Parts: sequence; C-alpha cells; structure tokens
Amino acid sequence: MYRTHTNGELRIEDIGKVVTLCGWVQAKRDLGGMYFIDLRDRYGITQLAMGDFDFSIGREYVIQVTGKVVERVSKNKNIPTGDIEVVVENQVIDKDNHVSSLTILNKSKTPPFTIENETDGGEELRMQYRYLDLRRNPLRNNIELRHRLSIEVRKYLDSINFLEIETPYLIKSTPEGARDFVVPSRMNPGQFYALPQSPQTFKQLLMVSGYDRYYQIVRCFRDEDLRADRQPEFTQIDCEMAFVTQEDILQTFEALMVHLFQVTKGIDFDSFPRMSYADAMLNYGCDKPDIRFNMQFNYITELVKGKGFAIFDDAESIIAINAENCASYTRKQLDELTDFVKRPQVGAKGLIYLRCNEDGTYKSSVDKFYTEDELKKWATRCNAKAGDLILVLSGETATTQAQLSALRLHLGNQLALRNPDIYAPLWVYDFPLLEWNEESGRFHAMHHPFTSPKTEDLTLLDSNPGNVRANAYDLVLNGTEIGGGSIRIHDRAVQSRMFDLLGFTKEEAQAQFGFLLNAFEYGAPPHGGIALGFDRLCALFGGQETIRDFIAFPKNNSGRDVMIDAPATIDKKQLDELNIKVTL
Amino acid sequence: MYRTHTNGELRIEDIGKVVTLCGWVQAKRDLGGMYFIDLRDRYGITQLAMGDFDFSIGREYVIQVTGKVVERVSKNKNIPTGDIEVVVENQVIDKDNHVSSLTILNKSKTPPFTIENETDGGEELRMQYRYLDLRRNPLRNNIELRHRLSIEVRKYLDSINFLEIETPYLIKSTPEGARDFVVPSRMNPGQFYALPQSPQTFKQLLMVSGYDRYYQIVRCFRDEDLRADRQPEFTQIDCEMAFVTQEDILQTFEALMVHLFQVTKGIDFDSFPRMSYADAMLNYGCDKPDIRFNMQFNYITELVKGKGFAIFDDAESIIAINAENCASYTRKQLDELTDFVKRPQVGAKGLIYLRCNEDGTYKSSVDKFYTEDELKKWATRCNAKAGDLILVLSGETATTQAQLSALRLHLGNQLALRNPDIYAPLWVYDFPLLEWNEESGRFHAMHHPFTSPKTEDLTLLDSNPGNVRANAYDLVLNGTEIGGGSIRIHDRAVQSRMFDLLGFTKEEAQAQFGFLLNAFEYGAPPHGGIALGFDRLCALFGGQETIRDFIAFPKNNSGRDVMIDAPATIDKKQLDELNIKVTL
Repeated sequence: MYRTHTNGELRIEDIGKVVTLCGWVQAKRDLGGMYFIDLRDRYGITQLAMGDFDFSIGREYVIQVTGKVVERVSKNKNIPTGDIEVVVENQVIDKDNHVSSLTILNKSKTPPFTIENETDGGEELRMQYRYLDLRRNPLRNNIELRHRLSIEVRKYLDSINFLEIETPYLIKSTPEGARDFVVPSRMNPGQFYALPQSPQTFKQLLMVSGYDRYYQIVRCFRDEDLRADRQPEFTQIDCEMAFVTQEDILQTFEALMVHLFQVTKGIDFDSFPRMSYADAMLNYGCDKPDIRFNMQFNYITELVKGKGFAIFDDAESIIAINAENCASYTRKQLDELTDFVKRPQVGAKGLIYLRCNEDGTYKSSVDKFYTEDELKKWATRCNAKAGDLILVLSGETATTQAQLSALRLHLGNQLALRNPDIYAPLWVYDFPLLEWNEESGRFHAMHHPFTSPKTEDLTLLDSNPGNVRANAYDLVLNGTEIGGGSIRIHDRAVQSRMFDLLGFTKEEAQAQFGFLLNAFEYGAPPHGGIALGFDRLCALFGGQETIRDFIAFPKNNSGRDVMIDAPATIDKKQLDELNIKVTL
Repeated sequence: MYRTHTNGELRIEDIGKVVTLCGWVQAKRDLGGMYFIDLRDRYGITQLAMGDFDFSIGREYVIQVTGKVVERVSKNKNIPTGDIEVVVENQVIDKDNHVSSLTILNKSKTPPFTIENETDGGEELRMQYRYLDLRRNPLRNNIELRHRLSIEVRKYLDSINFLEIETPYLIKSTPEGARDFVVPSRMNPGQFYALPQSPQTFKQLLMVSGYDRYYQIVRCFRDEDLRADRQPEFTQIDCEMAFVTQEDILQTFEALMVHLFQVTKGIDFDSFPRMSYADAMLNYGCDKPDIRFNMQFNYITELVKGKGFAIFDDAESIIAINAENCASYTRKQLDELTDFVKRPQVGAKGLIYLRCNEDGTYKSSVDKFYTEDELKKWATRCNAKAGDLILVLSGETATTQAQLSALRLHLGNQLALRNPDIYAPLWVYDFPLLEWNEESGRFHAMHHPFTSPKTEDLTLLDSNPGNVRANAYDLVLNGTEIGGGSIRIHDRAVQSRMFDLLGFTKEEAQAQFGFLLNAFEYGAPPHGGIALGFDRLCALFGGQETIRDFIAFPKNNSGRDVMIDAPATIDKKQLDELNIKVTL
C-alpha cells in the first residue's frame, strides 16, 4: 500500500501518529512562511502543513506524503478531519535511511475546469474530460449513492429468496416496440443479434422453469431518437415472480422501496398511496401524477356551459385548477401562464382565469358572460377561498386533461411545491391493455404484448378491446414513472389472441415468439413482475431530475461518448468479415 | 399469493395445518386406491395424498392444492419434507363455500425429455427446450450457486469499500486483441459502436477519477471462433484499485476467494501458494499448473546425452515425469500413452519410458543405449522408487515442456489425481510483458497493452523486450486460469513507449487510446487490478469443467441460441435505417 490512511480518516485521537497519505492536490496556500496543502481523495480532505514547499507542485498533482498528525491551531469544523493536520518535514528520518517525505507520484497539467463543487466548466467540456468531472464531490456522491442503492436492492431481494439470474445480451430482434440495436454475426453470415430492450421473455421463461423469484440489475438498449435525458443504454432493476397476484407484487416491491428509502435517505414510509389509472387521468390529467401537491382537477363543464361564451359552449370538457393564494398574480404573470399553455408542446388555445379576491369579489377574464353568483359557483366547485386563483382550460377531454396537467406541473414548479427533498411515491393501477394508434391503424400494447387483461374485462376483448383494462401497474415517484409491470399472460391461447389483436399474423407470432408460446404449453405458472428504471431511481434519490450525472460514462443527445469518441468508423476488414457494407 | 407454503418447507411441526401449495407434478403413483403426487417447486418436493384422483393430470402440470398436513406412515428420509404429506380431499369446506381443493393452474404437454437429475434428453434437445432443462435439480443448483457467489462477491467487496460502478456497453472498436462485436449506429450513419471485451480502459479512467476501489460483475463480448466451452458473451468480476502494489492486489483478492470458499463450500484456506511464471514453466511446462498432484518435471538432459541414442543426443532438453506406482502398466497402456502424445494436438514424436520394477531392476524402451546404472540415475533424479514409471519426452525445450504438460494432465486424469472436490488455488506471477508473434512479425502484449513492466527490467525494454517481465499475475484453480491482472502503466511516456513496441504508430495510438493517454496527464495515480472469469469460477465451485450449465441461457458452439433461434435475419427496413447492406 502506498498509504497508511485515507484523507477522510484522521481524527484528534490520531495525534502523534506518523502517517502516509496519498491523494490529489486540491489547493495550496502560503501563510507567511508556512505552507498548506489540501490533499484530496475519495474519502475526504486532509490538511498538510510544511515549512518548506516545492512550488512546482500544482493543482491535481498526485502526491504521497509522510508526516506526523498534530492538532490544528485553527480547527475547521466543516470537514471531519478538521481538528488535525499532518506536518510534513522536508526529510523524515527513519531508523535506517533518510526518506523523502513528499513524493510526486504523478504530475498534472492544469485541468480545463476547476475541480470544485461548483465548477466553471461547461457541459460539453466536462463530458469530454469526464474522468476529471467525476472527481468533483457532486458526481462522486451520485456514483456512491448509485452503488449504495444497487447493493441494498440486491441484499434485500436476496434476503427474501430472489435469485439474480443473468440473461443474454445477444438475442433476437423483435420489431414490436422501440427500435433494436443490432449486432451482425460473423459466424452466421447475413444474420444479426439484437441487444435486449429488456429481458422480458427470458424472465418469463425463468418462471416457466420454476425460478419463482427472479431479479437482475441489467443493462437494456433502445435505439430511439434521444430526447433530453434519455440514454441509448440504461439500467433497470428487472424482477419477476410466479404464483402471485398483482397485490403480491405491489406489496413486495413497495417493501423494497420502503427499505431503500429507510437505509439510504433515513425516510420511513408506512405504505404508498394507490390510484387507478382512470382516477389519475380524471384528477391529474396524467398517468404519473406528482402528488407532492394537490391542485386536482375540477370539472366545471355543466356550470359554465350555455352562458353564451362560445369557447366553453363548444368544449367537451371545461376543467379548472385552483392555484392557492395566487389571486395577486399580476397581468404579466397571467400572460406568462397563458404563453406557457399556448406553447406548441402544450398546445392550448388560451387560458381563462378567475381571481377570488381577498375582499370576496371575483374577477375573471370572461366576466361579461358570467354573473358574480355564477363565478362564485366555480370557486365553490374548486374549493377556492378568498385569495386563490382559478385557472381553466377547455376542449376535447383527453387533450384538455393533458394541457392542464402541464400547467399544473408548471405552477407546481413556480410555486415551489415540488421540493426534491420531499418524496411522494404512488402506485397507479388498472391501466388500459391497448391503445389505438392512428398512424398504424391498429392497437398497440400499452405496456407490452405479454400483459394480461383483467379477467372481468376478458369479454370485452372481442367487443371493445380499447376498454379492456390490464393487470398493469406503475410505480410513480414525484411525478416520474420509475417502474412498471404487470401480471403476464401464461396461457398460450390468450397470448395468441393478444398477438392477433396487435396485428401479428400466426406466422409472425410463431417466428418471433414461438419459443415463448411453446413454453406456455409445458406447465407455465401464473406470474408477473416489474421493472424499475435504475438510472431514474438514482437521480430521484439524489434529489435531481436528470439521470446523466448518475451514470459514470453517459452518452450525449446524439448517442455519442465524446470522451472516447464513439461510435466511430471501423476497418474495411471488419466489415468484410461481417459480410456487411456501409451504404452511404 | 397462490400458496401458503413452498414445497420445501413443511415439517413434522406443521402437522394439522391446512396449507395451500403450488407446483409441478413430478410424479404420480397409484397405491391401490390411494393416490400420491410428488409436487415440485424450486424449494423441494412435497408428497400429496388423495383418495380420489383425476388421472387427466400429467407430469409437469402446474397445480394448486389445499389440504391438511399429516404425519406419513412410511417416512422418506431422503427429502427434508419426508416426514409429512398433505392430504387433499376432493372438496374442502370453508366457512362460506365449497372450494375445490385441487386446481389445475396450467396443463403441460409431455416434456420431450424427463425432468430428472439424470435425464434421457440429448444436449441439442435440452438446449432447444432450455426452459425445461432448467427445471432439473443439477441445473437449478448451478444457477443458485451462481447467485450465491455473485451476492457474496458483492457483499464482501462492498464491506471493504469497493464501489460497483457500471461502465458502458456501447463503446469504441479497438483492433488490438480479439475481434469485437460491433453495433451500427443509426444516429451516426456509417459509424459503429463495439461491445466491450472488458471494461479495461474505463476502470483505469475511474482510477484517474479517484474511485480507488472499483468492481463490477459485468458482461464482456468476444467474437472469436468458439472452441468447446467458450461463449461469445461471458461474465467477469472486474476489479481495480489505486495506490496499491502487486502484493496488495494479491492479498485483497486472495481474501475474497478465501471468503467465497468459506461461505459457499465450507472450505477454509489459510493462504494460497505462489509460483513464478518461470518456475511454472520449468516444473509443470504450463503457466496454469494443476497442483492438486505433484508429478513435476525432471530435467535429465545431461544424464542421458552422449550415449548414442540419437533422439536424445539431438534434443535441446530431455524431460521426465514420474508416474508413481505405474510400473505395472501393460504394453497396451504404454502404447496408449504414446498414442496420446503423438496426437496432433500434442505433437510429440514418441515417448520413452523407464519402468522401475518392484524387484529393483529397470526396464526401459531404450535399454540398449543405457546401462542399469545409468537408468538408476534417471530414477534417482526423478525421485522414483520401485514400482514407479518414468516417462520421458525430448526436443526443443518449450515444445517439450508443453507436450509433457499435456501428458502430465492426461495421467492426472487417468490416475484420478484431479478430484473436482479438492481445490488447489495458486498465484502465478512475473509473467513476461511481451510475446513474439511469428505471423505478424512483432511483439504482442502477453496480458494487454496497459500492463506495466517491472521496474528492474525497464532497461531491457530497448535491448531485449522479450525478456522484460511484467507486474502481471494470474489466479489459477485446479489447472484452470480463473483470473488475471496486472499493475498498470500510469505514465503517459511509458504507455506511449508500450504502444510503439506493439507496432502502433503515434497516430494510431492517439486515435484509439488518446483519451487514456490524455487522462494520464491529469494526475493518474499508480493502480492495478484483476478480472476473474465468473462463468468458470462458478463451474469450478460447482465441481464441473464446463461453463455452459452455469449460464441460464448459453449459446452453442456456433454462437447460436437454439431456443430463441438467434441470430436471425432482420428486416430490410432495419438495414436501411442503419445504412448498411448484407454483402452475401
């Protein structure tokens, strides 16, 4: 070992010890003849004091020092090692030899940005020098949190008899769903593997094999056009259980989450609230409501129609939210909210407001159509009190719900109701089995083709497939979906019927999923599972919204790793061996 | 939950309980009016007894039963639940309803092979129905052992401050080493990612970033022509440490292995023996000696030369091993050994033997060239006693060592000296840095290009590169390499010099590994690590030689998954989007 202690370790009890430390030079200071270095490693910072100092040592140099631990004259209460410092003599005498007390293990050029909690480096530069950015405390804390979460997930699931079983990364391409990354096979010319979008079919086969509690923390791949904060490769906590109902899965993974909150955040949860998909859409306009704040939807359709205001009269639904204590919003603030809902990403035509003034009067943007008494009824419906502000959108129901949901979240941010240190988990259940896709003119699976319909809705499969509910559920945290799952189909006939509904021919279904259909004929047990997005989970536990800084080496929005400069062209020899050609 | 207990759980203390069990029908028996079912799940087998039996229930049906636990009349001492059975009435009466006590959860066709410890299914058939093969106890034990080993590795490394950090799977192709699997990038037309052969450069960058104890249990990929028992994707326990010497790494990972042996096999190791590469080659002719048995090499060159036997007289080295107590080998047995060494895979021209007869006389195949007294000297050199058999090969030294090593292992197998329940770990160290490759006419890195030369051999880098020893080590278990590692280069100049030696131009080195060379200029600490082959480790801990049955869904020797039928052709649309074309 190059060191006897780390830089986070020494305390007042260690005074008098001769220690050897290694680390990076965080800072150096000249205090009139005494020289000080802050020596940094993963574990902390220790102050070195020396009478004579080699000024050729710069920031981020890697050094090894030997010296004696002494009590500091002026203690630093901000760091755990702040009571002591290590006095490094130019030469220390050991029993045989003179030994240099300071060795430069490696030099450093001046870093392109400061290695501080708040750095001066831009995003692009920090991505290029990711290995330097990762030295900063905020990133190190994220990476350490990620490790902590993964080890706790594993310990917990192991303790309740789950087995981690590795599934293959080189599998078969299945056009259903998102685009696959593919891998040409040299040994099977003209054929391709695909990288898994999830281990879905393999974990179901493991249930058929009798491994009734499976999990895996596993990389998954999707070749999608990357929106901000999406990664082409991402990690999920993938789980499956046999002989269980939806209730069993919810309880099992709620207990896992309760454990994670407890051990990593010190937060105790009793149980998580639950909400049906229908209620989520009705009350929040969204299937992943942020319930850290209330501001639920109020349907005022029948209150406001037929009073001559054409926009409301023509609307399918008129929905209002109550922004508490916002009656004092200025004209400018209201205009900003209107601009927000008119952004193309939201797409509303306009925004109606109703101020519930402190003096008990009402002021609305549509005053001329409604009496004070009518406006009062809006307020009553919205549980608004004097000083509140009611905001109203109208139109086709689903569209209006989505628009008002966006406004609700925007207000939540603006009013600081979305504190990242507050955690509000929520189960959403009873998702629809299918959703109609206008473009392809057919139903798509809302979750995936293996999700089972609710028994009581089975008869609707033929008559009204769009109304069939699934045994499917999402785990939502602070308005973000962090996981989803379902009870799966385990009957060959039902699975075949499902493929029919999704537009597969018998031949396509057999070619792509024949192994699963066949497996269902050899004693497949009832089973279901869940997959949690691990990158997102880490980010939320870290109190942040973006996942990129919770991944050691992420890719940018073009799917590039700018540090190693990948992807890149490859040799013609490689292409030839793979029997492929670039067609550009 | 579909069940109150598993099939491995019920004991004599549970008598009288009404329980619900689920599982697969392992066997059914008719004992004159009483019917019995062995119900199986992952946890064990429970016997069900019933007076009336639905004979439509076949093997591997999935059933759910409710019944009362009773003491068995004739107990089965071979299974933990053998003291009890569960009596299933045709109907049980609960307080509200009549409930059927036996529910068929799913049917099963007759499996294509028996789901027994010893099955009648051939390899190919079992691979195709892998989900059924995985139901058999031997495979289930392997998969459970694998889980146990992985969780214990993680817990142990976590306990000594290692962080598991995930590195990317979509990286850059580097032609050095084995062939990469590549992944065409749709968003970066004409460019390709590569799947990692190991996270080598990323873990080194993490050391530069200050994460001084890293590990990852990680999938790696090599597009090699598959020899028996190689997989295109395999798992390794990948580790790296900073501020350490070779001794620190050996001690750290020896302690990990000692822990694994202790917790999974109940075997206590004090410490592992160590052997230099030079000694391993000298005494065993191989860099991964199986030291479960002795049979070391004896160099008898100067004893046997110059006596007129041309084959010996022309040989660079004459090397003998002593097969103890084998003097009684028949002519036929000796011929078989001769045939063995003459196989093309071994390549010797012939085999000389010397019988040390029980009566103190000697009998050799080259009697006419040597006196009894001379033959006695061979025996003395080989520590052979009466009753032993000395076997001799000769020729060019390295070739002869390799041939004799093959014969030694063959004899070890034949003489049952290689008991899979005996564990003999060994560190081999001081590997050469480089090996000359005749085909390419240049040096290749014996370990990889990032391995550091030994400081005392640095001067040889220019004068005699082939003689430079590396700070490299392998962990060998029972004659199989289960891991290897090295202290890395952390100095840009030395790394550049290494790339020179390996035939890289400056431009090539910068294009492929510029990110690492650059990182070394910003305070890279001394570091090193190791990677353990996890599939192989599991197989050896399971007392087996082949890794395939320790992987849930392995590929065959053509790199195919015959169960899902991958790889496969993909749609032209997919190829077009990726800007590639198959050239067959």
